[in-house]
Amino acid sequence: MRIAVLGTGMVGRTIASKLVSLGHEVRMGSRTAGNAGAVAWADKAGAGASTGTFADAAAFGEVVFNCVNGQHTLAALQAAGAAHLDGKILLELANPLDFSKGMPPTLFVSNTDSLGEQVQRAFPGARVVKTLNTLNCELMVDPGKLPEPTDVFVSGNDAEAKAQVAAWLQDWFGWQRVIDLGDITTARGTESWLPLWIRLWGALGTANYNLRIVKG
Amino acid sequence: MRIAVLGTGMVGRTIASKLVSLGHEVRMGSRTAGNAGAVAWADKAGAGASTGTFADAAAFGEVVFNCVNGQHTLAALQAAGAAHLDGKILLELANPLDFSKGMPPTLFVSNTDSLGEQVQRAFPGARVVKTLNTLNCELMVDPGKLPEPTDVFVSGNDAEAKAQVAAWLQDWFGWQRVIDLGDITTARGTESWLPLWIRLWGALGTANYNLRIVKG
Repeated sequence: MRIAVLGTGMVGRTIASKLVSLGHEVRMGSRTAGNAGAVAWADKAGAGASTGTFADAAAFGEVVFNCVNGQHTLAALQAAGAAHLDGKILLELANPLDFSKGMPPTLFVSNTDSLGEQVQRAFPGARVVKTLNTLNCELMVDPGKLPEPTDVFVSGNDAEAKAQVAAWLQDWFGWQRVIDLGDITTARGTESWLPLWIRLWGALGTANYNLRIVKG
Repeated sequence: MRIAVLGTGMVGRTIASKLVSLGHEVRMGSRTAGNAGAVAWADKAGAGASTGTFADAAAFGEVVFNCVNGQHTLAALQAAGAAHLDGKILLELANPLDFSKGMPPTLFVSNTDSLGEQVQRAFPGARVVKTLNTLNCELMVDPGKLPEPTDVFVSGNDAEAKAQVAAWLQDWFGWQRVIDLGDITTARGTESWLPLWIRLWGALGTANYNLRIVKG
């Protein structure tokens, strides 16, 4: 499958590498063509890996992963171009973290809105599914690193897109437990998990954890 | 032990009944003496149960549970009186939920502050420990209702108070897994869990669940 991964940071590289290893054609998009990090990634990732601008990548992909950090997500998607997102499933992984006031970060959108909703409003033709934003990127692509099955979530207005994403999460990354929280407004819920996630990181001394919902 | 439970709602009644059943002397506090709900609770709960104003209860208790809803928490504690809270451990269970704009509720304080912090600032002599605000009240007092051990949290500035609360949570309610998140600012984390908790309630169709942190 042809997959766009927007963003050259740790999340983007981890997702893109995993997808290449599964035999997909993955184009990593960045603000400018020839981004050093993206080129270094593609050289190492091998066959199937390519790079380009956000627009190049989005045009190439049948499906698009947004792995740009929260503060640059809307600008990156504008650069990708609405026409290249229309009708496509957009997996939205970013969190609205604001590190400008120091640690711990605050959320620049929260409570009555979410980044997931902002993205869906800005790109009404995209089939936005908020997912995987609740845990460390190494676990995103390898949940089996943890000793018990844990949970991830999908939020979005398009039920078919969410079901497809849940199937991909299982097939590509091994997620057995994917909870459909509801429409895109439920992204407020998973983005609000970040303030607790960050404090747990401090308390546990590792980012290598996730939550498992236990139901009676 | 003499314990004050402020609040006559479901959380207060559940906590107070459990404590009475363990043989403690429990005084339930409310805005006015003779609150019908409190009196009905005390009649049913039996020996060890009594009622009074917020101030009566706080004066009586060696330890104080705040089970008043978030919007009335600060007023209730003002009515209880700083002098009756000074030096005592105050278990702060409320969440800053605002239902005035309909469902789902929003948070009236979040992100850069928390209700737990507001309480500690307003009552600097109280040893505030934010805890148990992350789950349904039936599970607060009986975590064994779930098929696997799950987690609760403590946040506060007083390490000794947090250790004491963790011991009580284990002895009184059966909590084996209590995570110390850090100082009272970490209450932002557990209060931020509510927007996800509420969406999970909708998705799972039950409030009978909790999170279990799985670490690699």
